[in-house]
Amino acid sequence: MPRELVIRNVRPAGAKPANILIRDGIIAETDAADDASGAERLDGEGMLLLPGLVEAHTHLDKTLWGMGWLEHTAGPGLIDRIENERRVRRETGIDPERQSVRLAARMVKMGTTHMRSHVDVDTEVGLAGIEGVMAARERLKAIIDVEIVAFPQSGLLVRPGTLELVDRALELGAEVVGGLDPCAIDRDPKGHLDAVFGLAGKHGRPIDIHLHEPGEMGAFSLDLIIERTHALGMQGKVTVSHAFCLGMPDTAQVDRLIAALAKEGIAIMTTGPSASPAPPVRKCLDAGVVVSAGSDGVRDSWTPYGNGDMLERAMLVGLRNGFRRDEDIELALDVCTYGGARTLGLENYGLSVGCAADLLLVPGETVAEAVISRPADRTVIKRGRIVARRGELTGPVN
Amino acid sequence: MPRELVIRNVRPAGAKPANILIRDGIIAETDAADDASGAERLDGEGMLLLPGLVEAHTHLDKTLWGMGWLEHTAGPGLIDRIENERRVRRETGIDPERQSVRLAARMVKMGTTHMRSHVDVDTEVGLAGIEGVMAARERLKAIIDVEIVAFPQSGLLVRPGTLELVDRALELGAEVVGGLDPCAIDRDPKGHLDAVFGLAGKHGRPIDIHLHEPGEMGAFSLDLIIERTHALGMQGKVTVSHAFCLGMPDTAQVDRLIAALAKEGIAIMTTGPSASPAPPVRKCLDAGVVVSAGSDGVRDSWTPYGNGDMLERAMLVGLRNGFRRDEDIELALDVCTYGGARTLGLENYGLSVGCAADLLLVPGETVAEAVISRPADRTVIKRGRIVARRGELTGPVN
Repeated sequence: MPRELVIRNVRPAGAKPANILIRDGIIAETDAADDASGAERLDGEGMLLLPGLVEAHTHLDKTLWGMGWLEHTAGPGLIDRIENERRVRRETGIDPERQSVRLAARMVKMGTTHMRSHVDVDTEVGLAGIEGVMAARERLKAIIDVEIVAFPQSGLLVRPGTLELVDRALELGAEVVGGLDPCAIDRDPKGHLDAVFGLAGKHGRPIDIHLHEPGEMGAFSLDLIIERTHALGMQGKVTVSHAFCLGMPDTAQVDRLIAALAKEGIAIMTTGPSASPAPPVRKCLDAGVVVSAGSDGVRDSWTPYGNGDMLERAMLVGLRNGFRRDEDIELALDVCTYGGARTLGLENYGLSVGCAADLLLVPGETVAEAVISRPADRTVIKRGRIVARRGELTGPVN
Repeated sequence: MPRELVIRNVRPAGAKPANILIRDGIIAETDAADDASGAERLDGEGMLLLPGLVEAHTHLDKTLWGMGWLEHTAGPGLIDRIENERRVRRETGIDPERQSVRLAARMVKMGTTHMRSHVDVDTEVGLAGIEGVMAARERLKAIIDVEIVAFPQSGLLVRPGTLELVDRALELGAEVVGGLDPCAIDRDPKGHLDAVFGLAGKHGRPIDIHLHEPGEMGAFSLDLIIERTHALGMQGKVTVSHAFCLGMPDTAQVDRLIAALAKEGIAIMTTGPSASPAPPVRKCLDAGVVVSAGSDGVRDSWTPYGNGDMLERAMLVGLRNGFRRDEDIELALDVCTYGGARTLGLENYGLSVGCAADLLLVPGETVAEAVISRPADRTVIKRGRIVARRGELTGPVN
């Protein structure tokens, strides 16, 4: 007998109230009768129905979520922060598996049903982070899908042995090849990107590169990424995270880069950072670039900020981009739902018949109001099962 | 007999737990005995004790708080938004008194004990906004102090009759002379500022000017403000709100302006805007400029954003300024407490013996954690009386 759930009286994306029939984890009807017999029922109370939120960029392995407050004292440079992180990791004894479960559970409560997590690989931590997050995702698999990026946080070439570890991480089960600031960290943009694209070719995997480099340096690295994506036929397989250089003042240069990203099917990820130049989201979307969003680090040695709430992230993306009209705020949410789904290559994502029933119910008169208000009262459905109610998990994580 | 309250087991600004004795609305002891007899008692549960939050810039008269969601459709220009606002005000029937009470009550629940509200004065609304907010502040006086700026939102000179209305508003009971973008709105910076400073001189009142003008235009207007402040001996009596021009790329120009602001005792107010250039808060503070923060409009025809929470505002100021270290996040909160208090000219503000007992209790291991976490569980004390518990008012507003 099929497993059925009827969600009564919800408003899909703010539309008029309807009943949603879910069968075996798939949306079967979007205008079901009120009396589907035999099915489990959930009273939607007139709430909004949204597709599950997609966290397209976080760092599960090193969050301090639930570990008490860490006083932040690190200097301002990128290298200061990388060194500080390695020290904090040693001194606080962060357990990547335990911490991943804690933060992912928090994210599920807030409505996230899919995520991509970058996981550090370096010559000090080795593959312990990868193994920890893989163990966590096995424990979390009933409530969230986790994709893993093997991420050379401390540089890929500058610390000999890292490249081989990333290679091994991809064999172990990381799905995506990570990279980081080809000029600024490895000091060898050609070498770094050849290595990253080489690993992607060898393993047949997508790429996600952190690109914090600002202005013309970032534009140069981005050009190198665009050239390789084109030459190697990697269209649709490359994401550039942050891409601060797209916020530089030279709009002619930015327009050229955005057009090239669209042509090569390179996605970008933004956190909506308020202290950095940032990609202009509407301009990117209008040009056809896939844009996703993420929390980035949540309460870790890099940043004290973050709460894993992708509705709040949509608000921050909206604020960063000067979005005030409802249609623009809906766009900010789209980045945190459909944009993330496209970046992660999710199939059957959405609110239509045939889509996977990965859903969020939240109070709100309109979608824009839910983004602005960020209500704590959330009900989350994963593959047709209710995994969170009123902002709390319905059962323990194994 | 004196009215006494003992707050047991609180941590002033994160220090070790202590008992605070309040007598007749004034902090009488900061290390009181546990058994003060006859006094009312409040269990502080080990929470942080902070001075009441200071909302240094909002617009009570035109919030839509509690009126349902308004769909935002206005165009992007400043004039589009001013025209749109006047249309919305006509069509939705905003009652300034009712709306002021609603938003101020929300702000009190979140820990705000003092505020400065700009209130529109124009040839359409006349003095109805001023009268409404004055009526509201009378009703609110037991829970919050409200200072009123007579604010020519639609221009001071460009709509003849407005100047006379602002003059009348100051006679009626508005305390502060408002101004707005001397170049961009009135198209007559000399005329606008001479009028604003003229009213201030006539009534012996302070000034608070909205300055959205970016870059060199804003720097020009700011110079005119600095010149008049100096020439008229208005040091310590002038606030420039927003001051986006201080975020312009020419740091030599910015440094010069900041030094002049410090010399003339001109304060600035920032919202920590993420889509606009913004004053560099640490640099301003280091130079000796008084910096306050505000919500600006909350859910009104200008912006759908905002929730009146000055702890969240401190977080946004921190994010905007790239503050990650605890000491910097504490600085962001200082802007929302002591900086606002200096801007409003509050006497006896703070946590010391002799200060007015306007206080916020909030959970948090440290001050920085409270800013980042923004817990909903807040207890608020105004002049020694408990006015909110667990984020809800203890009694109705009259």
